[in-house]
Amino acid sequence: MSTVALQAKALLIRAVECDQSGRILEAQTLYQDGISQLMDFVSDEPDEGKRKGFLVRIKEYMDRANAIKARINGRLALGEVVFHLSIEDNDTNCDYDQLFGKYMTDQTVEILIEEPHLTKNFQYQNLIRFLELAVTNCKDLKYLLLVTKKDVEDFDKQRTNMGQIKADLERRQITLYIKYEDTLHDRKIYLSNGYIIKIGRGLDIYKASNPMYSIGLTNYKYRKCKQTDVDIWRTSHTAGK
Amino acid sequence: MSTVALQAKALLIRAVECDQSGRILEAQTLYQDGISQLMDFVSDEPDEGKRKGFLVRIKEYMDRANAIKARINGRLALGEVVFHLSIEDNDTNCDYDQLFGKYMTDQTVEILIEEPHLTKNFQYQNLIRFLELAVTNCKDLKYLLLVTKKDVEDFDKQRTNMGQIKADLERRQITLYIKYEDTLHDRKIYLSNGYIIKIGRGLDIYKASNPMYSIGLTNYKYRKCKQTDVDIWRTSHTAGK
Repeated sequence: MSTVALQAKALLIRAVECDQSGRILEAQTLYQDGISQLMDFVSDEPDEGKRKGFLVRIKEYMDRANAIKARINGRLALGEVVFHLSIEDNDTNCDYDQLFGKYMTDQTVEILIEEPHLTKNFQYQNLIRFLELAVTNCKDLKYLLLVTKKDVEDFDKQRTNMGQIKADLERRQITLYIKYEDTLHDRKIYLSNGYIIKIGRGLDIYKASNPMYSIGLTNYKYRKCKQTDVDIWRTSHTAGK
Repeated sequence: MSTVALQAKALLIRAVECDQSGRILEAQTLYQDGISQLMDFVSDEPDEGKRKGFLVRIKEYMDRANAIKARINGRLALGEVVFHLSIEDNDTNCDYDQLFGKYMTDQTVEILIEEPHLTKNFQYQNLIRFLELAVTNCKDLKYLLLVTKKDVEDFDKQRTNMGQIKADLERRQITLYIKYEDTLHDRKIYLSNGYIIKIGRGLDIYKASNPMYSIGLTNYKYRKCKQTDVDIWRTSHTAGK
């Protein structure tokens, strides 16, 4: 087998493993990547018999990937609101930990973050603050899927930053997968323990500290907020707590 | 009485109040400022009788100020080490709160910070992080005396930053007094509950996050540290806790 085929096989084996252990976000990504690599390989295969054999296998994996997609959509179907908060302009005491830290439990092994705008320094900083909370609270976190828009002005910088964040998490045995989706608008954070955090403004709820060197520069419970709504949903698949 | 004399009188009345309520750091500053203003006023007084009367009063205040100075020196006399930690190069889990947060209690109404170098962004940020911890843990904090060196390269910037920090704390009913001492070298934080925090590097114990956007950018328990020693001393005047 060629290197490409071996890589595809390795990806698909890991996909099945993740699938079986309930890590469906990661399984979906692995299936997609594995199938895509296998397709490339098959189109180069001259032997028609072998090609047909591969196509049967690919079809099987596609069926599994579609089944997972249906399961993910089922998970993302909102259940009931367990917590609602309207943040008013200039409110304080809205650190991420204060708002939704208690929902980020050890049962969270996967997280999906849909955050359209990640191009400015404070937006990267908000992402890091969320990831620090995830690393602190979700001891068994394995996989993060981050969906965001491409930075049309400086995609190189965005790719570099994302690559560094990915490498940093890798050192903690957490896989970060970044998906660029240019039509993304809504903000959402799905935790695999079954909770979904929906904030109108996503992670971008804080005003800048003013003046810069003042209480609230680094401890966000003292930061003033922008007006937005926070809803925590519990889906039907909620685990533990 | 002239405005200057009235101001001096107000300062000295507050000095006596602080003195009586045990806020000796603030009392010392107020005595010094009050005496200094009164001296200016007296030298302009043409009536010799009045001048002598004032000088008697000034002498009284000076005696009180000297008595307080002796008391402060007594407080700063180290008692016993209650906690020692040698931070090794690249150690983590050394957030200020983790290192000495538990000594910053509600009984702390005054704090003396001797931190020679406050000129760079990360140094101001460290100061803000310390102040955020103080505001969080010491609910009855009234007075902070910060001793530091003048920024010889850009004193205007330093004065502006310090002025903004002072104004910010004022909104929380905490008085910040800044004293520039060009020969300062040692680092020390004295808490009026009787504990003294001595760190070889003072507040400047962290390495920069590298790459910038990585776990540890904002949550300092994940930050790598520089090698230094931490000693917490309990003086003979330790209160409660």
